[in-house]
Amino acid sequence: MSDPAAAPPTIAHSGQRALVTGGAGFIGSHLVERLLHEGCEVTVYDNLSTGRGEFLENARRDPRLRFIEADLLDQATLTTAMQGQDVVFHLAANADVRFGTQHPRRDLEQNTIVTHNVLEALRIAGVQRIVFSSTGSVYGEPNVFPTPEDCPFPVQTSLYGASKLAAEGLIGAYATGFGLSAVIFRFVSILGERYTHGHVFDFLKKLRSDPTSIEVLGNGRQRKSYLYIEDCIDGILRAHWAEPGEVRIYNLGTDEYCTVNDSLGWICAELGLDPVRRYTGGDRGWIGDSPFILLNCGRIRSLGWQPQVSIRDAVVRTLHYLCTNDWVLEHP
Amino acid sequence: MSDPAAAPPTIAHSGQRALVTGGAGFIGSHLVERLLHEGCEVTVYDNLSTGRGEFLENARRDPRLRFIEADLLDQATLTTAMQGQDVVFHLAANADVRFGTQHPRRDLEQNTIVTHNVLEALRIAGVQRIVFSSTGSVYGEPNVFPTPEDCPFPVQTSLYGASKLAAEGLIGAYATGFGLSAVIFRFVSILGERYTHGHVFDFLKKLRSDPTSIEVLGNGRQRKSYLYIEDCIDGILRAHWAEPGEVRIYNLGTDEYCTVNDSLGWICAELGLDPVRRYTGGDRGWIGDSPFILLNCGRIRSLGWQPQVSIRDAVVRTLHYLCTNDWVLEHP
Repeated sequence: MSDPAAAPPTIAHSGQRALVTGGAGFIGSHLVERLLHEGCEVTVYDNLSTGRGEFLENARRDPRLRFIEADLLDQATLTTAMQGQDVVFHLAANADVRFGTQHPRRDLEQNTIVTHNVLEALRIAGVQRIVFSSTGSVYGEPNVFPTPEDCPFPVQTSLYGASKLAAEGLIGAYATGFGLSAVIFRFVSILGERYTHGHVFDFLKKLRSDPTSIEVLGNGRQRKSYLYIEDCIDGILRAHWAEPGEVRIYNLGTDEYCTVNDSLGWICAELGLDPVRRYTGGDRGWIGDSPFILLNCGRIRSLGWQPQVSIRDAVVRTLHYLCTNDWVLEHP
Repeated sequence: MSDPAAAPPTIAHSGQRALVTGGAGFIGSHLVERLLHEGCEVTVYDNLSTGRGEFLENARRDPRLRFIEADLLDQATLTTAMQGQDVVFHLAANADVRFGTQHPRRDLEQNTIVTHNVLEALRIAGVQRIVFSSTGSVYGEPNVFPTPEDCPFPVQTSLYGASKLAAEGLIGAYATGFGLSAVIFRFVSILGERYTHGHVFDFLKKLRSDPTSIEVLGNGRQRKSYLYIEDCIDGILRAHWAEPGEVRIYNLGTDEYCTVNDSLGWICAELGLDPVRRYTGGDRGWIGDSPFILLNCGRIRSLGWQPQVSIRDAVVRTLHYLCTNDWVLEHP
């Protein structure tokens, strides 16, 4: 992994007070551990709707960790929690891109409206810095690959992407209107330990239920980029610690991609299985699925960051984690 | 004005049933009159918060007009009103870009959440087409002039622009997810009869209060583009009647711009006044004001549309309207 200590030391981080929304989630809990390791005081704000108390087992041994179990729709509790913070890492979200059309209001509420609540709490409490997890899904179906942050103005194709774009817009407007400093990350899908949804999770569950045959969404030739969780955390902190600006936006992914078939092949090889593959067909796994995701990450690489774990290794590590943590698989 | 009858006749419009949200507003009431003139059955859905019953005086003489005084937050009434419509023109909005930071939740509610409600009503009622009034403010402070629809992915600088961008995103996602057809317009500021807010309105009010001296926001050198209301309606209908597609986005403005000083000069000349100009200073009129707005309208021009009224004439017509309709000026 790249060495965060080598990042430009323009913002002192030891002793910095950080609030992490969604801090009991997959990405959040890794970030919390790292922030504690770096000497920060950390407040986790999580309603445990998808976050898991177990993910904070290590972190809770540290007396500098404070845990608030509350909802981001509870503006009063949120604003109180925000008092005295130096930075808010806003990671809480409905993080699954696939089911938007089945719950058309969920992304709006959990991603857009909640982000507005977080920004209002920052404004009222006088917190100056927000770090936000957006998504490469805001590019819809781009024409440029690898896709840079300033690619042609995209049209949205998923409610998830639209809700994150709306949140980005609110953050930009608050930065201009109220003088906040913001860092926005557009992630590819993240893999690794504590991963609780997505294709590795789904494939493993299906193969446990029937090792001889597996359904694959789409034609299996969708091309996707993934990033390993520790590389993701490195990127978040490197950009956060770099020279502040009004609104900085960074893609965060790898320079490689794999197909769904590639990933399934790696999973089957690890498990020693050779199931018949049944394809649902079409070049998309679901409505609004983007058949090709590959982000240009030159901007964050220019800060000295680079990913250390390949997509294949990230898939395999994720698989090993799930195989040795059945409880995650059973109760997503 | 360009001739709407010359638009490609791919969608029959005589007898088409159209619902217009904000149909009692400035732009809405003009659109309603034109739709009736074209033979459509028109339902106006307006809560009269900024719309004016008086603006529909002409339209209400037509038996094909139906008026529903209701709020777009009333999902049940909205969904009922949507039944049997062929197209929804969603114009209702908080349309003033300037006061976002004083009311940080208003744009979110009235522009983003309300658009979600409209889309849900369309989906439930099975309406296939939405036409939406977005804004050039979604470009933030672009680097490219005139700014095309596919300019580099912008960063938002106002809560108004962010709320409209969020609405655009929702419309794109609904189009992909539920098979809607959408036309989105990014307007410059519109001028003309029934204009109820903006710089001509403000300057006239100030000059009536004190004809000898006037405060100008910023340094007066902000460059802005404007479009006359009838040209705006021509553009909306021409694009609506053109070949449908999943999501079509059009800038709608003129190829010219003027400075705030130019416009004030035209207004003073018409009124025979020569006030001392007191500038508040800076290159922006308010937080989030874009100092230069000029849109590339080549895309809609390629449909055969072109504006017929110059910015200067549009300013003068607006002024004459306000001078002969004191009631608008007194009760905005």
